[in-house]
Amino acid sequence: MSTTGFPKSLEDAHAFDAADPLAAHRKAFSLREGVTYLVGHSLGAAPVKALKQANTTAGTDWACDIVGSWNTADWINLPQTTGAKIAPLLGVASDEVIVCDSVSLNLFKLASALLETGRHKRRLIVEREEFPTDQYMLAKLASLVSAENVHTDAGGGLAALKDGGVLVKSLVDFRTGHIADLSAHEEAARASGGAVIWDLSHATGVLDLRLADWGASYAVGCTYKYLNGGPGAPGFIYVSRDKQNELSTPLPGWLGHANAFAFEDEYAPADGLKRFVSGTPPILSLATLNAALDVFEDVNQADLQAKANTLGDMCLSVFEELGLASTSPPAGSPRGGHVSVCHPEGYAISRALADQGIKTDYRPPDTIRFGLSPLYLSYSEVWAALDTFKDILARETWRDPKYQVRATVT
Amino acid sequence: MSTTGFPKSLEDAHAFDAADPLAAHRKAFSLREGVTYLVGHSLGAAPVKALKQANTTAGTDWACDIVGSWNTADWINLPQTTGAKIAPLLGVASDEVIVCDSVSLNLFKLASALLETGRHKRRLIVEREEFPTDQYMLAKLASLVSAENVHTDAGGGLAALKDGGVLVKSLVDFRTGHIADLSAHEEAARASGGAVIWDLSHATGVLDLRLADWGASYAVGCTYKYLNGGPGAPGFIYVSRDKQNELSTPLPGWLGHANAFAFEDEYAPADGLKRFVSGTPPILSLATLNAALDVFEDVNQADLQAKANTLGDMCLSVFEELGLASTSPPAGSPRGGHVSVCHPEGYAISRALADQGIKTDYRPPDTIRFGLSPLYLSYSEVWAALDTFKDILARETWRDPKYQVRATVT
Repeated sequence: MSTTGFPKSLEDAHAFDAADPLAAHRKAFSLREGVTYLVGHSLGAAPVKALKQANTTAGTDWACDIVGSWNTADWINLPQTTGAKIAPLLGVASDEVIVCDSVSLNLFKLASALLETGRHKRRLIVEREEFPTDQYMLAKLASLVSAENVHTDAGGGLAALKDGGVLVKSLVDFRTGHIADLSAHEEAARASGGAVIWDLSHATGVLDLRLADWGASYAVGCTYKYLNGGPGAPGFIYVSRDKQNELSTPLPGWLGHANAFAFEDEYAPADGLKRFVSGTPPILSLATLNAALDVFEDVNQADLQAKANTLGDMCLSVFEELGLASTSPPAGSPRGGHVSVCHPEGYAISRALADQGIKTDYRPPDTIRFGLSPLYLSYSEVWAALDTFKDILARETWRDPKYQVRATVT
Repeated sequence: MSTTGFPKSLEDAHAFDAADPLAAHRKAFSLREGVTYLVGHSLGAAPVKALKQANTTAGTDWACDIVGSWNTADWINLPQTTGAKIAPLLGVASDEVIVCDSVSLNLFKLASALLETGRHKRRLIVEREEFPTDQYMLAKLASLVSAENVHTDAGGGLAALKDGGVLVKSLVDFRTGHIADLSAHEEAARASGGAVIWDLSHATGVLDLRLADWGASYAVGCTYKYLNGGPGAPGFIYVSRDKQNELSTPLPGWLGHANAFAFEDEYAPADGLKRFVSGTPPILSLATLNAALDVFEDVNQADLQAKANTLGDMCLSVFEELGLASTSPPAGSPRGGHVSVCHPEGYAISRALADQGIKTDYRPPDTIRFGLSPLYLSYSEVWAALDTFKDILARETWRDPKYQVRATVT
């Protein structure tokens, strides 16, 4: 038995579990017996505390105190208090993160605000194969405000940034788990007078992020993947403190006003990031997210990244053993919390796995993603899941026609 | 005793209750004993079914099936299925309403989309004293896309519309309850080649709306007031079917793509209103709203409007008796679901009322609003609330310094 490298046997996996500093956190989640949930990169499992909060926010705060809960349950400050809980996971100060709207909308807000500062060339850069929303939002914003839309090939963002402008870039690629070179991008931005908006959707809650140390000033991110905030929980915006008050939101709403409850006819932005709150936030979703974040209280982020990486190495070694290609960074190299494996029958295999309690997801045309949320997965259950995967391939279980039937959401 | 006009005694109020076709709906809500809740125009009380759904969506759908619930709980179609439940309350077809984002953002989307059609003059018209978000969003959009922002005096929108452009107008004024002349505005729009986006936030669920019959093509609205969808529940967009596919959203997100799960690099709008869905919606809030709407299933909308109006008449007659001014349309005339009363000590009076279980709200500088949600209020409890109001004024209870302490949210 060994706990260096990655587990190479079930016994190894048990030894890794016994030595896992995160093992105790599993009980903070509501998990279904007999299911190995490898889709935390899409929608995180439910923290017990989040479920309790959903109940309290609906059944007590809304049902009993109704509108009074804006004060008594402090709903009014949830965008800030929830942001403050995310901040340490990004390595930034508590007033440098706010929670509001969706990632898609937050991208639009930040990109527009950066153009409006006049500090950067009016070029909005985004790569092909980026998460679709990032591509669509940038293209549309460019067309609305008559900026140039530089739609590069995959991986072409860095080169384009050297001519200035605003680049939107995922830190972790949603298909492959590849981690972008943050420092190289920030350096290019500094040299060219450009800026980078980092999309941290697949990075937050699984990588040991140190945005302040790394000199990154702008980011958006998702809260329902590795942050386990619940389906469609609102997104976040990070802006370093020194840059906040120079930004003007393109979507000014009443709740982002400097004096919201004066109901003034003229807009004046609230101080700091509060200006990015537009309309009334979805409180049930937001309060639930707020409670969900408490699972990170005693977590060392380096442990999160190390465990996800080790689990990924374990998966990749099996894929290699099976002769299957993966678009993910190879075993031994850093990556996000998921690994991909390619197979022309990826969809059917993913369905066959699900039928045996192994939940993964499929991304066209041929990729199965294994999401390795380090807070609630054990090494031994992922080992067992890989055994099932091997078995499905060996027996060609996936050939059963029932696994070919497409669901609405794949 | 009489049940014509409005109740003029407690006995009358009891008789109105006995004859109330909506009385049976009160039990569909979770209401607190000893509290008369007159803030349904701000945040509606909780339907029992909505509370159950919040529990199911979090504790069953999210906790057990997790990401699978996009299919098994049909989360993916909630924007449409929830819109379809709102449609009859607007008097429109089920595929003419979609639920997404906030009212603020939906206003931005529709106004931008209407400009982009090229069918209207590039003038965005909004009145002073409109709900603040409407003013801020229009001004900012105009500045972003180089359109003219016509910011008229209160009530000046109709005249401005006669020169063309896009007007955003609340059907029910959030301060006074005044109902705008929809037909006159639509006629002006037709004559000038302009368009009106109706903000139905204070109208939906309390007025007998017939948008299709009235020839209105565009609207947005709020779901957490008279629709009782829960705090910050997402807003809705209405567009008549013939106009839907000519609109281009300024905020294109992956979920509004024609083929969202193909993750394509180029944007192509989904058919119909689905294109206005941008990022992943807040499912806990959205599913709860969906269930909340079931309280309207057997409700005759004319009954809603009639009861709210009668309750308003009853309040206004007391205000008049006390010599207090109101900015609301006088007794006997149509209005929205709330009435206002003016008093320089409005804030303190509202706090004193709350202390005696009568919840109202205050809007600066001097207005107390009495919201008269017809589904869960009885005539006799509103009568009793007015008695308490009279008593607080007679005894000047509001002078107690504790009622002067301002809460964060007023």
